[in-house]
Amino acid sequence: MRPLLSTALRCEDERLWVLDQERLPGEENWLAADSPQAMAEMIVALKIRGAPLIGVGAALSLGLFARKGAAGAAFDAAALLLRNARPTAVNLMMAVDRVWKAADPWATAVALFDEDVSLCDALARHGVELVEDGDRILTHCNTGGLATAGVGTALGVIRHAHESGKKIHVYVDETRPLLQGARLTAWELEKLGIPYTLLCDNAAASLMALGKVSKIFVGADRIARNGDFANKIGTYSLAVLAQYHGIAFYPVAPLTTVDAKCPSGEAIPVEMRRPEEVRGVRGSFGSVGWSPKECAVYNPAFDITPAKLVTALVLNTGVLSPHSLSAHLPQD
Amino acid sequence: MRPLLSTALRCEDERLWVLDQERLPGEENWLAADSPQAMAEMIVALKIRGAPLIGVGAALSLGLFARKGAAGAAFDAAALLLRNARPTAVNLMMAVDRVWKAADPWATAVALFDEDVSLCDALARHGVELVEDGDRILTHCNTGGLATAGVGTALGVIRHAHESGKKIHVYVDETRPLLQGARLTAWELEKLGIPYTLLCDNAAASLMALGKVSKIFVGADRIARNGDFANKIGTYSLAVLAQYHGIAFYPVAPLTTVDAKCPSGEAIPVEMRRPEEVRGVRGSFGSVGWSPKECAVYNPAFDITPAKLVTALVLNTGVLSPHSLSAHLPQD
Repeated sequence: MRPLLSTALRCEDERLWVLDQERLPGEENWLAADSPQAMAEMIVALKIRGAPLIGVGAALSLGLFARKGAAGAAFDAAALLLRNARPTAVNLMMAVDRVWKAADPWATAVALFDEDVSLCDALARHGVELVEDGDRILTHCNTGGLATAGVGTALGVIRHAHESGKKIHVYVDETRPLLQGARLTAWELEKLGIPYTLLCDNAAASLMALGKVSKIFVGADRIARNGDFANKIGTYSLAVLAQYHGIAFYPVAPLTTVDAKCPSGEAIPVEMRRPEEVRGVRGSFGSVGWSPKECAVYNPAFDITPAKLVTALVLNTGVLSPHSLSAHLPQD
Repeated sequence: MRPLLSTALRCEDERLWVLDQERLPGEENWLAADSPQAMAEMIVALKIRGAPLIGVGAALSLGLFARKGAAGAAFDAAALLLRNARPTAVNLMMAVDRVWKAADPWATAVALFDEDVSLCDALARHGVELVEDGDRILTHCNTGGLATAGVGTALGVIRHAHESGKKIHVYVDETRPLLQGARLTAWELEKLGIPYTLLCDNAAASLMALGKVSKIFVGADRIARNGDFANKIGTYSLAVLAQYHGIAFYPVAPLTTVDAKCPSGEAIPVEMRRPEEVRGVRGSFGSVGWSPKECAVYNPAFDITPAKLVTALVLNTGVLSPHSLSAHLPQD
């Protein structure tokens, strides 16, 4: 078999490996995902994360399971387990469904990997047209090579802009509670040599008021037909602030993130996560808790940004007004 | 001497004690502030915090220093040291100046303590008129009995509303980077038996979109003549979000917080704090770092909220439109 190699996912000699993103930036540790069960657990535990990457990871896991001879009820159970590992991620469901229904599950999984690499390149090619020399770009969560099989979505645009010689500075939201910005985006930008500044999520507004943010690029976990979209908690806050300050706000995501069956943001289910994530932090860097031990917590994984706050969607097919999105979708 | 007793500051038998707020909620540890030098260090280290409380704490420290015989250059040096411990806090400067210039520094310091208790009661009395049965109130940072010599400012209003029998629920921003909401406000609300829910700062917007926030009460560290005000980083973000969602937004602060010499928010200096605070967390609960070790950080202690985003100011003299504030100030 042809080896499949990306920043955080590798398949070689019939074995699948996941870079444990919980241990970054301190340590690079590759975990064997030897069964769909193991992969599903890594998805739940956020060891593998990023909507596109978990789709590809789940697909490769299921494809490899079939390649090793799994079929019938065992194969169906594995597909269902992977499909339900995270409720908001439409990429995950679509990727699993494609492999599940394929005549050749493994070949389909490999195609999904290759497609994601191409999609990222297409996103970056379109997005980079929006970036100007001197831009100060704010981003949220992690949307780079750690979130996809390719160069990433929002961070892929930033990377291409830098590599094409545009002088940019990146402001990175730390992204509480799981700190994907402080841990992962900061790590990627450092590796790529792109100048950046880290901030607490609640300081973004003050940066905007000072005129220090010219554009915002974020990812998207699911886009509804009408252009509303779900993304990491905190994204909606940035969208409101961007509108107030007259700053362009761009979600960047492959067209596969669009759920054509979902009419609007209200129909997107939002996963509620464990209160411990807010009562403290936990990671390879250590584990501390700072709040009263049993306090009630509001901890949604995502929020919903309405289309009216979106300047334009950056898709692999091009840059699009969110209001013209539905015209580009298959009609049923 | 008459003992002066409050939630986080005590003076008995010529000794001044500070409740170490860095060790809450895990532990109640009282530290002896036996010199102005010791008090200034506690202010810098945030062991004593809250604009009103640090003013009273510094005043008592300087008053006690005089009572014990300090005068001349040593007394002036102590006053200057305390005055400069935190650059944004006008309460601190005004309190120190009053004691510094007083014929009887100790009596003046005691008067400042008593005034703060009365001010808090007056604030709560006016603010509670704005609270309705069933309100879901969002607050930021800590503005309670731990921040003042009395019941607090914004949290004092909440406490009075609860104690007067109004059914309320409080949403508490964790308040990165120093987590005063998660550690201190949560601790106070738990002690007072007021129902509350803790959230990450970036989740407040999604709560507002869901219609779960009916009012926002925050503190203020310095209010300019035109009604602009400085408060804990993240306050400005809430003000913009409140306006977008049509939610009433009230800063609560004594009239002493108004700096009549400061024409507008632009003239308020904003303290920049150490990058380590954003690269991780540190407290009695432990110390962890999660970002690349040397990354650049944007870490302002405060942000500036313009008067146009303020529904009304809750002052000890009454509830006031920010635009009519200057008419209530001494004209010079």
